[in-house]
Amino acid sequence: MISEMLKNLKEKTPLIHCITNYVTVNDCANILIASGASPIMADEKEEVEEITSICNGLNINIGTLNKNVIESMILAGKKANELLHPVTFDPVGVGASKLRNNTAEKLLEEVQFAVIRGNISEIKALALGSGRTKGVDADISDIVTEENLEEVINFAKSFSKSKKSIVAISGAIDVVCDENTAYVIRNGHKMMSKITGSGCMLTTMICAFVAANKDNYLEATVAALCAMGIAGEKAYETMINNDSGNSSYRNYLIDEIYKLTEETLEGGSKYEVR
Amino acid sequence: MISEMLKNLKEKTPLIHCITNYVTVNDCANILIASGASPIMADEKEEVEEITSICNGLNINIGTLNKNVIESMILAGKKANELLHPVTFDPVGVGASKLRNNTAEKLLEEVQFAVIRGNISEIKALALGSGRTKGVDADISDIVTEENLEEVINFAKSFSKSKKSIVAISGAIDVVCDENTAYVIRNGHKMMSKITGSGCMLTTMICAFVAANKDNYLEATVAALCAMGIAGEKAYETMINNDSGNSSYRNYLIDEIYKLTEETLEGGSKYEVR
Amino acid sequence: MISEMLKNLKEKTPLIHCITNYVTVNDCANILIASGASPIMADEKEEVEEITSICNGLNINIGTLNKNVIESMILAGKKANELLHPVTFDPVGVGASKLRNNTAEKLLEEVQFAVIRGNISEIKALALGSGRTKGVDADISDIVTEENLEEVINFAKSFSKSKKSIVAISGAIDVVCDENTAYVIRNGHKMMSKITGSGCMLTTMICAFVAANKDNYLEATVAALCAMGIAGEKAYETMINNDSGNSSYRNYLIDEIYKLTEETLEGGSKYEVR
Repeated sequence: MISEMLKNLKEKTPLIHCITNYVTVNDCANILIASGASPIMADEKEEVEEITSICNGLNINIGTLNKNVIESMILAGKKANELLHPVTFDPVGVGASKLRNNTAEKLLEEVQFAVIRGNISEIKALALGSGRTKGVDADISDIVTEENLEEVINFAKSFSKSKKSIVAISGAIDVVCDENTAYVIRNGHKMMSKITGSGCMLTTMICAFVAANKDNYLEATVAALCAMGIAGEKAYETMINNDSGNSSYRNYLIDEIYKLTEETLEGGSKYEVR
Repeated sequence: MISEMLKNLKEKTPLIHCITNYVTVNDCANILIASGASPIMADEKEEVEEITSICNGLNINIGTLNKNVIESMILAGKKANELLHPVTFDPVGVGASKLRNNTAEKLLEEVQFAVIRGNISEIKALALGSGRTKGVDADISDIVTEENLEEVINFAKSFSKSKKSIVAISGAIDVVCDENTAYVIRNGHKMMSKITGSGCMLTTMICAFVAANKDNYLEATVAALCAMGIAGEKAYETMINNDSGNSSYRNYLIDEIYKLTEETLEGGSKYEVR
Repeated sequence: MISEMLKNLKEKTPLIHCITNYVTVNDCANILIASGASPIMADEKEEVEEITSICNGLNINIGTLNKNVIESMILAGKKANELLHPVTFDPVGVGASKLRNNTAEKLLEEVQFAVIRGNISEIKALALGSGRTKGVDADISDIVTEENLEEVINFAKSFSKSKKSIVAISGAIDVVCDENTAYVIRNGHKMMSKITGSGCMLTTMICAFVAANKDNYLEATVAALCAMGIAGEKAYETMINNDSGNSSYRNYLIDEIYKLTEETLEGGSKYEVR
């Protein structure tokens, strides 16, 4: 019952510490509030351990990576680990520069992540970068399709096993798994790729869901992806009805998370277990 | 006549220098324009004194505090003081880390603020941090209610006296005061707490109001809080009518400031003097 | 046929690297997507050369200038020049501080810009700062009018010649020129000055247009200004119809770029060649 995950989030109203990029940070804050959580953004190394200590979860996003902040990410991540707060990771743009690759690798070494969320290219770059999955994996296409789905699931399970993290690969078809069980999710709308930040917002919201469901990271992550997908579908209807465009769509998307009920989430979710 | 304060703001169109956080900065810029002012954001220490010199007011917000910027805040604050430009202070998250506490305390020592605006917790943390109000004050609840209102007013007047600043405590009930006179404001809507940045936007807009009303900081601040509260009420109606959510609400809130007239402000304000 | 420029942009979907300010960065990202391009924001000096190498164009904006980022701007600019990627420049606030003046001057020396876009004050400050245009130029008014249009055109052509860049001066009347040919554009709406970021978004979108039209920077820039102007006009109608304000207007503006077709662009453009 993934709606249970939303119920817990609304009841527990977790406080989420975000070390994130300056492009989509406002949307990430607003979607946290929309989902029932509260945001606090702080990235100065002198305060991140204290800040994360008063929170219930930590989300790390390397979208506009800055060398000064890498140490903050590690300090906050270690502290959150120590306090058993879930830590989520959004490896934005990994593969695009050595700095991002090295930082992602270092974060994976130093911090235990509850959930890692990226698109298939980013997750592949992570897996290859960490030097643990080679060969066949490198050949997976950069788009998840019905044809390569089995292969993607196996790759994701294997990466999940090596990192002891839930792995969430988002795209036209989403895959969320631990080392044994994969959920294939078919919610969402392609319009979500026409705004900046739908990935960042998703990972941030995953953090809220897992922080409120510490005994069930897998289903909590599935719930977050279904929620985002359903919101994306509904927001598209509003956009068409209003004859608006991508900037309004961004608002509608967050609005739909704000309006999402347990019933809508349960009724609208389209997933299968593999 | 608080509508006079808005009239002066529309006529004088002050330029406001903001050293603020990267989460809500865009909303702060847009609400300044909506109110009749103009924004300039600049935080590099090498230029902040020059920038603030061409402005009419300075707003300092520690929402995403970064060590590099602390010196900029002090340099700009001192220069604005020297030029008799009003300086407003939003101590976001003070109490949450030593860095924020120390920075807030240092700013209060080095810079003379025209107005300090926070929620009751933040203002309490400031007052206690500065070591001047102890004992009873520490026991004030973190929510302002009809029951503890008298106590909050006395606390706020005392803090105002010690800092020689207008003190604005925003919440379900707002209190704005100098050392002698308190305004209790009952505008606003709880939906304002469902977006990020309503506090940041409010303090930024206070800066515009006081910069345009340099002989009357107290009423100018009251006008800003009434304006924000009325906008929050009207925006909620629009949200309900459009069946939208918190992200759209943020736009409607700024839109209502844009549309606010002297008549609406005067007619819609709900305050009493204590 | 300026609609050809939009057609090429939609077909080539260039990836644009932005080193920009933290105030309007989200809007810049969304307008790039709206126009058919894709954004990547990165300003850490250790990665900017790699990042710009995988892109098709680079946009540099000094809106919230930070000393750490100046070197990144130069490194990225030189690399983009080397790879023959167009580089656009938005000298936000030049004239307001020595740091901005010196940085702008240094950028003009070290980087070859395809297009420089500012308001008349900024372009004047650039031209004077670079010490190449003096005397008469300094007397041009800070507003472009029908009366001083000829003078502005001559000034812009001369500045274009000295910098070997397309020069775009935006305002109530826009002027876009190379050293020989000027386009005078009369699209747009004064409401565009009631939001933050309309200039930033414009320059960012110019970068997308020129990256997709490398053999015709002049017409590509004209197309971007006409597109923005038409969007500004249409967004105003929506704002009036919805009885909303400046924050919603910002969304409508980006929405209109998202909805813009070749036909609307061709039909709605109002320009003359001088």
